[in-house]
Amino acid sequence: TSGQYDLIYNAFSFAFATLAAATIFFWLGRSQVAPQYKSAMTITGLVTFIAAYHYFRIFESWGAAYDVSDGVVTTTGYAFNQAYRYVDWFLTVPLLLVELILVMGLSRSETISRALRLGILAALMIALGYPGEVAETVTARWIWGIASMIPFLWIVYELFAGLSKSIASQPEDARGLVKAARYVVVGSWAFYPVVYFAGAVGLDSAAATVIVEVGYTIADITAKAVFGVLIFMIAQRKSASYFESHKAPVEK
Amino acid sequence: TSGQYDLIYNAFSFAFATLAAATIFFWLGRSQVAPQYKSAMTITGLVTFIAAYHYFRIFESWGAAYDVSDGVVTTTGYAFNQAYRYVDWFLTVPLLLVELILVMGLSRSETISRALRLGILAALMIALGYPGEVAETVTARWIWGIASMIPFLWIVYELFAGLSKSIASQPEDARGLVKAARYVVVGSWAFYPVVYFAGAVGLDSAAATVIVEVGYTIADITAKAVFGVLIFMIAQRKSASYFESHKAPVEK
Amino acid sequence: TSGQYDLIYNAFSFAFATLAAATIFFWLGRSQVAPQYKSAMTITGLVTFIAAYHYFRIFESWGAAYDVSDGVVTTTGYAFNQAYRYVDWFLTVPLLLVELILVMGLSRSETISRALRLGILAALMIALGYPGEVAETVTARWIWGIASMIPFLWIVYELFAGLSKSIASQPEDARGLVKAARYVVVGSWAFYPVVYFAGAVGLDSAAATVIVEVGYTIADITAKAVFGVLIFMIAQRKSASYFESHKAPVEK
Amino acid sequence: TSGQYDLIYNAFSFAFATLAAATIFFWLGRSQVAPQYKSAMTITGLVTFIAAYHYFRIFESWGAAYDVSDGVVTTTGYAFNQAYRYVDWFLTVPLLLVELILVMGLSRSETISRALRLGILAALMIALGYPGEVAETVTARWIWGIASMIPFLWIVYELFAGLSKSIASQPEDARGLVKAARYVVVGSWAFYPVVYFAGAVGLDSAAATVIVEVGYTIADITAKAVFGVLIFMIAQRKSASYFESHKAPVEK
Amino acid sequence: TSGQYDLIYNAFSFAFATLAAATIFFWLGRSQVAPQYKSAMTITGLVTFIAAYHYFRIFESWGAAYDVSDGVVTTTGYAFNQAYRYVDWFLTVPLLLVELILVMGLSRSETISRALRLGILAALMIALGYPGEVAETVTARWIWGIASMIPFLWIVYELFAGLSKSIASQPEDARGLVKAARYVVVGSWAFYPVVYFAGAVGLDSAAATVIVEVGYTIADITAKAVFGVLIFMIAQRKSASYFESHKAPVEK
Amino acid sequence: TSGQYDLIYNAFSFAFATLAAATIFFWLGRSQVAPQYKSAMTITGLVTFIAAYHYFRIFESWGAAYDVSDGVVTTTGYAFNQAYRYVDWFLTVPLLLVELILVMGLSRSETISRALRLGILAALMIALGYPGEVAETVTARWIWGIASMIPFLWIVYELFAGLSKSIASQPEDARGLVKAARYVVVGSWAFYPVVYFAGAVGLDSAAATVIVEVGYTIADITAKAVFGVLIFMIAQRKSASYFESHKAPVEK
Ligand SMILES: CC1=C(/C=C/C(C)=C/C=C/C(C)=C/C=O)C(C)(C)CCC1
Ligand SMILES: CC1=C(/C=C/C(C)=C/C=C/C(C)=C/C=O)C(C)(C)CCC1
Ligand SMILES: CC1=C(/C=C/C(C)=C/C=C/C(C)=C/C=O)C(C)(C)CCC1
Ligand SMILES: CC1=C(/C=C/C(C)=C/C=C/C(C)=C/C=O)C(C)(C)CCC1
Ligand SMILES: CC1=C(/C=C/C(C)=C/C=C/C(C)=C/C=O)C(C)(C)CCC1
Ligand SMILES: CC1=C(/C=C/C(C)=C/C=C/C(C)=C/C=O)C(C)(C)CCC1
Repeated sequence: TSGQYDLIYNAFSFAFATLAAATIFFWLGRSQVAPQYKSAMTITGLVTFIAAYHYFRIFESWGAAYDVSDGVVTTTGYAFNQAYRYVDWFLTVPLLLVELILVMGLSRSETISRALRLGILAALMIALGYPGEVAETVTARWIWGIASMIPFLWIVYELFAGLSKSIASQPEDARGLVKAARYVVVGSWAFYPVVYFAGAVGLDSAAATVIVEVGYTIADITAKAVFGVLIFMIAQRKSASYFESHKAPVEK
Repeated sequence: TSGQYDLIYNAFSFAFATLAAATIFFWLGRSQVAPQYKSAMTITGLVTFIAAYHYFRIFESWGAAYDVSDGVVTTTGYAFNQAYRYVDWFLTVPLLLVELILVMGLSRSETISRALRLGILAALMIALGYPGEVAETVTARWIWGIASMIPFLWIVYELFAGLSKSIASQPEDARGLVKAARYVVVGSWAFYPVVYFAGAVGLDSAAATVIVEVGYTIADITAKAVFGVLIFMIAQRKSASYFESHKAPVEK
Repeated sequence: TSGQYDLIYNAFSFAFATLAAATIFFWLGRSQVAPQYKSAMTITGLVTFIAAYHYFRIFESWGAAYDVSDGVVTTTGYAFNQAYRYVDWFLTVPLLLVELILVMGLSRSETISRALRLGILAALMIALGYPGEVAETVTARWIWGIASMIPFLWIVYELFAGLSKSIASQPEDARGLVKAARYVVVGSWAFYPVVYFAGAVGLDSAAATVIVEVGYTIADITAKAVFGVLIFMIAQRKSASYFESHKAPVEK
Repeated sequence: TSGQYDLIYNAFSFAFATLAAATIFFWLGRSQVAPQYKSAMTITGLVTFIAAYHYFRIFESWGAAYDVSDGVVTTTGYAFNQAYRYVDWFLTVPLLLVELILVMGLSRSETISRALRLGILAALMIALGYPGEVAETVTARWIWGIASMIPFLWIVYELFAGLSKSIASQPEDARGLVKAARYVVVGSWAFYPVVYFAGAVGLDSAAATVIVEVGYTIADITAKAVFGVLIFMIAQRKSASYFESHKAPVEK
Repeated sequence: TSGQYDLIYNAFSFAFATLAAATIFFWLGRSQVAPQYKSAMTITGLVTFIAAYHYFRIFESWGAAYDVSDGVVTTTGYAFNQAYRYVDWFLTVPLLLVELILVMGLSRSETISRALRLGILAALMIALGYPGEVAETVTARWIWGIASMIPFLWIVYELFAGLSKSIASQPEDARGLVKAARYVVVGSWAFYPVVYFAGAVGLDSAAATVIVEVGYTIADITAKAVFGVLIFMIAQRKSASYFESHKAPVEK
Repeated sequence: TSGQYDLIYNAFSFAFATLAAATIFFWLGRSQVAPQYKSAMTITGLVTFIAAYHYFRIFESWGAAYDVSDGVVTTTGYAFNQAYRYVDWFLTVPLLLVELILVMGLSRSETISRALRLGILAALMIALGYPGEVAETVTARWIWGIASMIPFLWIVYELFAGLSKSIASQPEDARGLVKAARYVVVGSWAFYPVVYFAGAVGLDSAAATVIVEVGYTIADITAKAVFGVLIFMIAQRKSASYFESHKAPVEK
């Protein structure tokens, strides 16, 4: 119905505005962190920038797929690009993990090895989910979905076990935020397979579409913008000691 | 009538210009505050930036919904997106509260806990009002409206009681402005439910539409741009001591 | 006739170019004044920026309202938005007064009280003139016009009497410019009611339209761009002492 | 013919490119002059910026006025806006004189009085030429043209007599450039009445149009971009002593 | 089929987003390297900027070449510009080699001679492949492809043999990255002739098109964005000593 | 044929991308040279910026002149603007000579006199070639071409004889590059009359068009972007001594 069409339309526009605003916030905030965290803030802003671009395209695709006149929603013949989110995730999800690792301030070699391992696992996870998303049978959707769960669970394990001792070595005033960031990742990421499998049980009904689209949108905003604010706060706290030893004039 | 159409059209264009100008003012003003208030000014500018974007879309939606030729106003079949404001408020209203809390200069833990609590309450307030705004029955509009009043009243209480002792600890020359900002929030915010319930009594008449649209526009500008100027002035006054101890050269 | 159409068309385009150029001039000039005058220059540039945006829209509205082919001017059915100027003035006219008060360098409390009082009076003046501008009877145009004269005269009185002693306390080399600025305000502002009431005697004739549109355009440019140059010169002169005590290196 | 159409089309595009490039050159060069000449460079860039905008519109108007298909040029019914140049000159010609006076480094009071007098004379000159340009009789074109010659000759006299003693007081290494700039002004400006009166003898023939349009274009580029380069060189030479006493670090 | 059309469509959009984001990352990162590596980062960003522009055009060309309605893909009569990638490579592939050589920090004369030699070989390689790509016979595709292999193998040899001793003289903490970068170049570049010759065996079938387009896209992203990240990391590590000896204030 | 159409289409797009990228490279590089060479880098970037703008217009004109459907190329009735390149050269060719003279670091008076003389000769050369390019007879093309050769040969002579002793006085490490730059100018410039006269022997055949358009494109890129890189390298080398005596902090 047009109420459901409008809700999804508004959700996409809201996501675009939120992610564009987050991009500006993170790139203006880049100058408020120490040099060793500038790359992390650059990437945080890139994640929301890429996502804002993709939400703009999702928003346009939704508008092109349906026509609404006098309250009646009809299809136009152009298909809504259901898989656009995967194009976004395939780039942004590995970058989200790199963001977290960079702001942990690990040793150089450990930073590279973890970023590579988690990044490849994340890309694999998204790539294994794509055929299931565009599948035309429920069986294929289940098979690919379960395959994607494997790297998903590996990432979750790594985030909780492998990073635990790294968290112990964080400065005290950043430790709570790093723990919170880890929970936000796992909590928001868990939403994605839930929504995916929900689509496998009631595909192509209007209510299921609303749940899927609004659900993914809330999860994307949480996983990118909310998570990015935590990254920024971690970087700011860890930068305090750097700025203490680098007092500088500022324009009056 | 076309006079009423023009008044609303001009109100939306005026809001766009005001909020765009406010964005430029706050982001140019970011360099005139101390580092601990830069994030507050970034967010103040983001609120008006997001709102300007949404007013542009509201303005476009209004133009697409009606056709005016030789003084006669007719509908086009495309519905005016009545709920666009909620998309805006859902993001900007929590940010407005974060703005105020950031510029209070509270302790780190108190800043985070208040921002989270008030932000969630504000988002809940807007989310509970959305179904009532798009409702097709007066009963539903009342029920959702009253539900939305609950977090609304909680926020007002928190702003007056919970922040009173914080205001007492403000520097003397900023205390008056912080009190004024609190009144601007509560005064402008009170306008929204009034307009909402006014719509519940005389829905779909042209005069009611004028009252609702122009009323919400005046309230949005007051709650965002006027409030933002107060935030900027508070941050400037609180930055004076920082700049005293950080005298610096400036380009002649 | 098409000659009159072209003259108004060219006047609107000229105003857009002048106000856009003035915006660039004031914002580039922001770095050439002392910190306490930066906000004044920001606002000066915002006034011309907002006005340039509105002249662009006035220009577009004029082009959409008439069709000119082989020298014959016909209406298109779309009405020229006669009231667009009021949308512009409602925001820019209060800001013009704030500009002047900020650059006077008064005490903080006096700055705020005068800015608030004059700003509200100015907004009230424009708001009271708007119904008369869109009125369809000459009687209504007179009534609202006279109502608008009341805050208008109050502002003029305040500018001459209330600010006289402030001018006496200005640095000597800025005093002449502040007096000139006051005359420019009153002189250019006096033009507006003259043009308004001229419209009340010969409405809807082509010559009257030329007088009204070109007259308002000249007055807008004088009241915004010319006045802004005076504000900039005042701020530069008052900044000289600040820069004397803040000699600084500059890039060679 | 289409060869003549193309020549004028290319001349307008060339002027746009040259003036846009000159704008960038002058605004990038603003950082290479002393503070007292920054306003002069800002205005120099504004003159070419305004002119580039107006050439873009002249270019568009020319393209809309004629249709060229298989080598045949026909009119479209839309008139080429012959008077657009006056809109440009009305703003830029006074600014050109202000540019020259600012870079002379005269006393403050003399700078203001000369800028005002020459600026008003220049605006009057352009305004008196406008009715002649759009006139439909040769008599009117002559009358207004001769009226415009009066302020024109007054400006020329002022530039040669009134500024002679100012030139004598210029630093030795800038004196030659200031003399050259004065000749460029008078030499390029003399071209305008020649082209104007040429139009009065053979109006509306294709060859006359080519002469008028290409002639005005060459004169505009000389009077704005070439003259601006001289202003920049004068400002650079006069800035040398300032930079000598303000040696500063620069980024390696 | 439309699933294959969508996969290629999404791959092109993904490449555009990735390369645009990489451009921002590299140009923001330019300020985090020592002056002798700034040119290398400028060029790294230019490579991804040029490639993003070309992917935008490839994306548009793909959309214009096919029409998809209700799941059926038909051609439009406009040909997909198959050779656009060569236009991109002809400029970016030589620049990729210049990037690598600049960040090696060789002597000035050796830098120039290697850059010239490898750059000319790379341009020759792409130019020799272009006629084969647009060829209409398999024989021509083979002939030009083999000709292109000659400079290709020469570049590979030079990268492994000629640069080996340069790698030995790299700082220890950058040596591993330089070796990795060399492998990324050869590994990703080897993909191109594989894809090219794959097209020579099964031209114009839909599956072959998917393999070619997605394969080239993955290779482009690896050869430009992934390689660029390695260049950035090498430059950062080699800049550490420079920054040690240039401790500087930074804005608090 | 469409293969020839595509080759020219791709050549124009390639030139646009190359010149736009070169512009960014030169303007980012402006901060890496000493102050006395900043104007040279500004102009170098302006040359490629103007040329990129003109190539964009050439590209658009080519697309509007022909229609390609199912592999068949037909004309549209809109003529390809053959003379657009002269519009570009008329501005950029004099600027290229000014670039070279500025970076030679000659005395002020010699810089001005050489720049004026060579600039006027270059403009004359292009202006004398324009009527021949648009001529409709081979005789006229030869006559104007030979006339254009006269200032062409004068410039070549001046570049080799008149600048020889200037080269001898260059710093040793820049001397080789200045010689190379001189050869690039003469070598690439020689290509233009060759292409011009080639057009005089086989006008209006498709193969001749390919040779002319691709040939001019290669020459433009060499004469502007490649030559600009040499100018940048000369300026960097000559800036080394300046930076030695101006060591400065840089942001870590
Ligand atoms: C496990 C699983 C999935 C996981 C998806 C995830 C975890 C996506 C995360 C996206 C983010 C974080 C986006 C923006 O920030 C799929 C692909 C749905 C397929 C079904 C199984
Ligand atoms: C209590 C209440 C409401 C409150 C809305 C408010 C308080 C909105 C504030 C908006 C702002 C501040 C916007 C921009 O700055 C609703 C949702 C109308 C629904 C009815 C009950
Ligand atoms: C008194 C009076 C008026 C005054 C208008 C004024 C004073 C407008 C000033 C506008 C400016 C200064 C614009 C831009 O800078 C109206 C509204 C015409 C209505 C009739 C009575
Ligand atoms: C005397 C005279 C004229 C003078 C025009 C001039 C002097 C124009 C200068 C324009 C410039 C300098 C433009 C851009 O830089 C007119 C108006 C043609 C009318 C006829 C008499
Ligand atoms: C050897 C060979 C080729 C090589 C192509 C290469 C090596 C392309 C590299 C492109 C890159 C690196 C792009 C972006 O970064 C061709 C032309 C396909 C033709 C067949 C033989
Ligand atoms: C001698 C000669 C010519 C020379 C043209 C030249 C030398 C053009 C140079 C252009 C450049 C350098 C462009 C961009 O950088 C013409 C006009 C073709 C006409 C025939 C005779």
